[in-house]
Amino acid sequence: MFTLNEQLQADSFFVTDLKICRVLLMNNANFPWLILVPRIVDAVELVDLSIATQIDILNEINLVAKILQKKFSPDKLNIANLGNIVRQLHIHVIARFENDIAFPKPVWGLETKKYDKKSAQDLILEIREVVEV
Amino acid sequence: MFTLNEQLQADSFFVTDLKICRVLLMNNANFPWLILVPRIVDAVELVDLSIATQIDILNEINLVAKILQKKFSPDKLNIANLGNIVRQLHIHVIARFENDIAFPKPVWGLETKKYDKKSAQDLILEIREVVEV
Repeated sequence: MFTLNEQLQADSFFVTDLKICRVLLMNNANFPWLILVPRIVDAVELVDLSIATQIDILNEINLVAKILQKKFSPDKLNIANLGNIVRQLHIHVIARFENDIAFPKPVWGLETKKYDKKSAQDLILEIREVVEV
Repeated sequence: MFTLNEQLQADSFFVTDLKICRVLLMNNANFPWLILVPRIVDAVELVDLSIATQIDILNEINLVAKILQKKFSPDKLNIANLGNIVRQLHIHVIARFENDIAFPKPVWGLETKKYDKKSAQDLILEIREVVEV
């Protein structure tokens, strides 16, 4: 049975479940930052999955990336599977801005700024609305 | 006409051209690190390409990732499109090891260790041989 890694759970809010992936919002108000976690037991490397499953995941990356593009008009998207700390397969989809606190550096390993509850809730509801149409 | 970004060119060795992507070897002996650059004029965001082209690129990611897996047996692959500094669309495919100099942190922004010519050449030829079969 799929269970979400504890660290991912602690660092994020649940948004929704797509066909393959659980969508999480990172609890970091510094960047609009979604994470896709394929609900596949023991998945670690994207390229070890069947190409059909990879394409399903790619479609879900497109879906959430386009939501970030439409809502935030970022200067750049960062899309990445690293997994050096949390091995459970997860893909970061992050909206980056030339004036964000890390640009042009990557976002990982910096101190985070927690959302206030209302902002997080509003954003989650907004994403959920688009995704679940 | 496609031209490779000057910074990417300066930091890497040419390996081969696949159907869509140019394959580069980053000139950094600290990590087995390939870069795929789709030979598509003005491409910046993966998700702005057609899904058919994205799938072609995904297949090429699989191809080079599996070469790294087979040759190096990494503890983890890092696969990422960031593009905050070089906007030309390029995807990093990096073999990571628990004892590499950055683990578990990401590899970007660290000082690089240049290959000696012979090691780079051997590695390039080896990759080329597998890819071009």
